[in-house]
Amino acid sequence: MKAYVHKVKYYECDRMGITHHSNYIRFMEEARVDLLDQLGYGFEKMEADGVVSPVLHVDCTYRKSTTFQDEIAIEVKLVKVSALKFSFAYVGRVGDEVVFTGESTHCLMEQGRPVHLVSRYPNLFKIDEV
Amino acid sequence: MKAYVHKVKYYECDRMGITHHSNYIRFMEEARVDLLDQLGYGFEKMEADGVVSPVLHVDCTYRKSTTFQDEIAIEVKLVKVSALKFSFAYVGRVGDEVVFTGESTHCLMEQGRPVHLVSRYPNLFKIDEV
Amino acid sequence: MKAYVHKVKYYECDRMGITHHSNYIRFMEEARVDLLDQLGYGFEKMEADGVVSPVLHVDCTYRKSTTFQDEIAIEVKLVKVSALKFSFAYVGRVGDEVVFTGESTHCLMEQGRPVHLVSRYPNLFKIDEV
Amino acid sequence: MKAYVHKVKYYECDRMGITHHSNYIRFMEEARVDLLDQLGYGFEKMEADGVVSPVLHVDCTYRKSTTFQDEIAIEVKLVKVSALKFSFAYVGRVGDEVVFTGESTHCLMEQGRPVHLVSRYPNLFKIDEV
Repeated sequence: MKAYVHKVKYYECDRMGITHHSNYIRFMEEARVDLLDQLGYGFEKMEADGVVSPVLHVDCTYRKSTTFQDEIAIEVKLVKVSALKFSFAYVGRVGDEVVFTGESTHCLMEQGRPVHLVSRYPNLFKIDEV
Repeated sequence: MKAYVHKVKYYECDRMGITHHSNYIRFMEEARVDLLDQLGYGFEKMEADGVVSPVLHVDCTYRKSTTFQDEIAIEVKLVKVSALKFSFAYVGRVGDEVVFTGESTHCLMEQGRPVHLVSRYPNLFKIDEV
Repeated sequence: MKAYVHKVKYYECDRMGITHHSNYIRFMEEARVDLLDQLGYGFEKMEADGVVSPVLHVDCTYRKSTTFQDEIAIEVKLVKVSALKFSFAYVGRVGDEVVFTGESTHCLMEQGRPVHLVSRYPNLFKIDEV
Repeated sequence: MKAYVHKVKYYECDRMGITHHSNYIRFMEEARVDLLDQLGYGFEKMEADGVVSPVLHVDCTYRKSTTFQDEIAIEVKLVKVSALKFSFAYVGRVGDEVVFTGESTHCLMEQGRPVHLVSRYPNLFKIDEV
């Protein structure tokens, strides 16, 4: 999979002159949307199927500040899958330097009820078993 | 009507140390939501009715920069009503000083079709005729 | 300490109709800014002293979705203090129901160097020792 | 000049399922930053020179809604230059269709004082005279 690149915008920087920490949570979303697109399971396709994907947990460790015009290359991996939940891990780099690491956990919901992941999307969620 | 007050957040300020200009468009939305609430025509009630309110035009003139913790008092008025469109005018002040003025124009849509304003919401849209 | 209340804005909600998860990281910032104001150690005062406060880590667990106009009451507590780092814990409620919990970790920097917390702000950082 | 392309993010869409109108003001900023980069007058270079560029006015007309994953190609042109102010005009398209038009007006400030545009940046601001 190709890393997703986010180029930091002027409006994403704060009074300290650095990328505001809340924005990395958005960059993580951009990166997993891109991963799912690369895998052929886009959010749009899921939403068209009536499936939504709420976030259950997110964490982010800020290792080095970034700023306006920095290009953050973000690698995402599906790292955990259980019957109803799955997690992605993220590593963001500017050049060779790790600037953040993070993780997010999600479920899928259909008509208000949780989706059993492996039976609904066997090709997507077998990744974990490798 | 009571002015709406927005206290500027840290994450709303940019590298110049001032409130990023895009955020005033959001403050204007907050202020008109508050006005409609005061008038008893909340967005939520409209959305429950199946009516949505797209924005057709917005403009904002920045007269004086604001920053973190500033309390911007925003006055909103319904200034124009035609068969299908209506406009609000905004004046934002910190203390006695005008920091921005703006205007936004909207329509209402129901099942993909424009709503005739005066016949659908006669109490709300007669304001213009005073 | 009084809980900080954030009323969810229209522009903070996403296509699923719920508060976008990234915004809770911002609500946590609003709540700790408010706590520091209540304690008399505002960000502005620190910034005027030449002290900035980068975020080192943040996590958030989403327990129940919130939406437009919900009033989230957020309690913040300083939960950990070491020589150079400190952490806040957050609990957000709508009515009696917990909607999210989170934690953030910070340091203070002055002229590019980490500030020794207890010697610089003894009144603020003794809280931990109780 | 090459048009700037913004691909709409999930978190930029609102409860109506469309790109929130405030975000177009940010896309306009992205597009003019890109134009200045193409011209060799990046914001970073200006900021390194101690010059900042506050926004004086912005307006946007929304012609057609856009949504998640849409690629908006934005053309920007410097349309007006006076001694102290300059304006950009924007046209955003998805495919062949115009989705928004806008304009923004700016000045340059150096040590709290307005910069005389043509004498300070003769190559950039002569564009208008063509």
